[in-house]
Amino acid sequence: MADKVNNKIIVFDTTLRDGEQTPGVNITVPEKLEIARLLDVLGVDIIEAGFPASSRAVADAVSAIADSVSAGVCAMARCMESDVYTAWEAIKFAKAPSINIVMASSDIHLEHKLKMTRGEALRYTAECVRYAASLCPVEFTCEDSSRSDRGFMLELINSALNAGAKTINITDTVGYAVPSEFGELIRFVKSNTSREAVISAHCHNDLGLAVANTLSAVMSGAGQIETTLCGLGERAGNCPLEEVVMAIETRKQYFPFSHGIDTTKLYRTCARVSAITAIPIAVNKAVIGANAFAHTSGIHQHGVIENPLTYEVMAPQSIGKTGSDIILGKLSGRHAFAERAEHLGFELSEDELKLTFEHFRELAEVRKSVTDADLIAIINQIRVVPDVYTLDTFTIQSGNKIRASASITVIRGGVPYVGEGSGVGSVDAVYNAITNIVGKDWSLSSYLINAVTGGVDALGEVTVRVKHAGELHIGRGLSLDVIEASVLAFLNAINRSLAAGVPPDRR
Amino acid sequence: MADKVNNKIIVFDTTLRDGEQTPGVNITVPEKLEIARLLDVLGVDIIEAGFPASSRAVADAVSAIADSVSAGVCAMARCMESDVYTAWEAIKFAKAPSINIVMASSDIHLEHKLKMTRGEALRYTAECVRYAASLCPVEFTCEDSSRSDRGFMLELINSALNAGAKTINITDTVGYAVPSEFGELIRFVKSNTSREAVISAHCHNDLGLAVANTLSAVMSGAGQIETTLCGLGERAGNCPLEEVVMAIETRKQYFPFSHGIDTTKLYRTCARVSAITAIPIAVNKAVIGANAFAHTSGIHQHGVIENPLTYEVMAPQSIGKTGSDIILGKLSGRHAFAERAEHLGFELSEDELKLTFEHFRELAEVRKSVTDADLIAIINQIRVVPDVYTLDTFTIQSGNKIRASASITVIRGGVPYVGEGSGVGSVDAVYNAITNIVGKDWSLSSYLINAVTGGVDALGEVTVRVKHAGELHIGRGLSLDVIEASVLAFLNAINRSLAAGVPPDRR
Repeated sequence: MADKVNNKIIVFDTTLRDGEQTPGVNITVPEKLEIARLLDVLGVDIIEAGFPASSRAVADAVSAIADSVSAGVCAMARCMESDVYTAWEAIKFAKAPSINIVMASSDIHLEHKLKMTRGEALRYTAECVRYAASLCPVEFTCEDSSRSDRGFMLELINSALNAGAKTINITDTVGYAVPSEFGELIRFVKSNTSREAVISAHCHNDLGLAVANTLSAVMSGAGQIETTLCGLGERAGNCPLEEVVMAIETRKQYFPFSHGIDTTKLYRTCARVSAITAIPIAVNKAVIGANAFAHTSGIHQHGVIENPLTYEVMAPQSIGKTGSDIILGKLSGRHAFAERAEHLGFELSEDELKLTFEHFRELAEVRKSVTDADLIAIINQIRVVPDVYTLDTFTIQSGNKIRASASITVIRGGVPYVGEGSGVGSVDAVYNAITNIVGKDWSLSSYLINAVTGGVDALGEVTVRVKHAGELHIGRGLSLDVIEASVLAFLNAINRSLAAGVPPDRR
Repeated sequence: MADKVNNKIIVFDTTLRDGEQTPGVNITVPEKLEIARLLDVLGVDIIEAGFPASSRAVADAVSAIADSVSAGVCAMARCMESDVYTAWEAIKFAKAPSINIVMASSDIHLEHKLKMTRGEALRYTAECVRYAASLCPVEFTCEDSSRSDRGFMLELINSALNAGAKTINITDTVGYAVPSEFGELIRFVKSNTSREAVISAHCHNDLGLAVANTLSAVMSGAGQIETTLCGLGERAGNCPLEEVVMAIETRKQYFPFSHGIDTTKLYRTCARVSAITAIPIAVNKAVIGANAFAHTSGIHQHGVIENPLTYEVMAPQSIGKTGSDIILGKLSGRHAFAERAEHLGFELSEDELKLTFEHFRELAEVRKSVTDADLIAIINQIRVVPDVYTLDTFTIQSGNKIRASASITVIRGGVPYVGEGSGVGSVDAVYNAITNIVGKDWSLSSYLINAVTGGVDALGEVTVRVKHAGELHIGRGLSLDVIEASVLAFLNAINRSLAAGVPPDRR
């Protein structure tokens, strides 16, 4: 393995394409842009920004990302000329554009999904890759590689390589492979292709083996790994970037490869992506879970105090996780606040700083102290869409033997609107009061509360998904009061729903 | 591999020992008993029920479990005679008792944690295993095997085998190993031990490799795997039973082993364990996550409709996950309710059936329909401790421009107690009203709401952790109203806290 010591693994992140297909995730263009910038700063080599042919909104988001990051930007395309054209239009101004052309290589996908013969697949691949390769570097993906006939897959790969593809992506689309098998598949492809190419590994986690399969691929000669942050993605998700990178970091002697990831940004980046996508991170999630560095048993605690290495194979600092030290209070000024936010990895504009500092001061008035977790929650509330409706006042009355009732005043365009409602509970009552103002065609689809810290004076972070005109819209609210946080989250979702479809500011 | 076809892998589950060490988990004896019975019905071969020397309460729980399951029951002991004695006392009435004696084999653990020389470790191992083996079968665990000096570890293992140990447990205590390395370690142990023994694999998930390492061990000759449900455990947790078993099931040709697990009970069992431990399951968790069988992208949906195998490697039915069909309404009788509960895997006593049916009827009065998820939530609320305080009535008034205030009446021993309180939000106000009755020494440590289904008329399931006398107590409440669910959860935690320390009914 000595010859591999200086090999750099290319990290190709698909949080914004495969990850965005996570059920329940529906994020706005500014949010996609923010995630792209986080990936850029994290050190990802190539950002797969989306599948432009799927909709105008996606194409716009991919263009906006292509315009604003220095990492490579890749767009996905099916094996058809119109997809390639749309992909190229979206990424052509990127510093390092590329197109990922996807063709199923397994018979089950060809027959049941594409209704295409092997011969057609070969012809379309050659035509499409040739066209794309005339525009920019091409990655060719064999979808469902792990269940494909090897002979035919090799024909397909060689046809793509002869047409100019530079990277061949071998996939375990259904999360079916086991590590030794997937490594062997990579070696087979590597030793049988007609031309030199980067071999990429794209794994899913259906059987809990995505990280192991990706590492096995790397050990078998893959030069690129495809990942998502927090393991987002369809079903059980894709290979989580943070886990595979920390495995390589922690076992350097075993995995003699370098990579461009700044691991000290992993924790904050994943936390932010979890907040934006409203997909909570499990407490026992490897690397980034709340418990990942927690020790409860007396035996373990004793050992860790004596020497952290007894039970920790990596330091929390290596992923940028610091203690939850209380650092700010009501006497902390704007400068201290701005400094702490910067330390936590946020780049705030003047307006954002002003707004979040106000929220911080409100909280510091009520609470003795404000933790990093509170600060992150406050900053995560920054509205990236303009508010159509803002909350003025509300009151509720409820109890277990009376029907809950609510009254609310919201402002739209300077004009106050008053609504009243009742319901089976406080949230139901106040949501009915709101829909009595805005209209009945917003319905709650999911509701989640997270207490930012322990204790009764914890900030409550409410995340809702609201259905409107067939689309789900995420809304978030933060308050010391559960009901107020619920009101803010619902209004936020309505505002985001009203803003959807507005094209992003494209300079 | 043909000679392995009929090999049965022993599933040794440590949800109740290593899993119970998950930060934030503090479960009662009746709850441990329920989990043990679930594990028994699931088909686990050996249940590691706890570490009796750690406290009287744990010893009592282990005894109660030993008395009530037909699976093997194992108790953990450190390498000292008093631990072995306490372990034996706890399990001696089990149908198939065993003791798991743990000794660190790595120098870092010996030096920094045990402050013991290698010579002492060898001597204590021989003495202790000999004593335990005179009582029942012994598993000997080399803690931190993956970071141990192989020569010394072998000496330790041979010393345990010569003293009568029947199973040797090779551990990746810190979740550090990679699959090929861990498999090689198993082969090394297997081919160098002085006597015949079952080799067991105990893996942690710190680098996301627990399942892969466990499978690699099995392929290298391990005859036993150690797991937890939902991957509970210290830090990132242990190897999840559901993932490793479904990997073996799904890739039978690759893993030619049988096991005793009834996979169709996996989903309901994990859901129940998640409810009891109050550790939510991530939506993108492999096998049991809410999204594990969900498909969002048009391409995927199209494929799955044509043929599920295009994107699913296992059927949801194989883990006992049925659709969320609406099955009960206000006209459904007690018989239909009982039948559905049984179908979902619950064994309800007459009293429990009466209580849960009442709750179901209350819900069915308000809602058009009651789903399986609602039903599971209702049954999960069954109080396993006697209620000291019960809710009579409460009212709250709150809003964003007024201070929240609450009034509550609770009953204790037939006597009503009235409390009033105010706070920064509704929950704070009503919790203050409660502590004005019960006393100030119950403090909220964490608060979680889960909406059981979508929509404003969803049941809200509140889980709190309340600190009292230095211990955390979980409380749960279920209601259509967030505030009522919060009140019920807080009272439940107080009741559980008051019941703690009461020894279980030991027949």
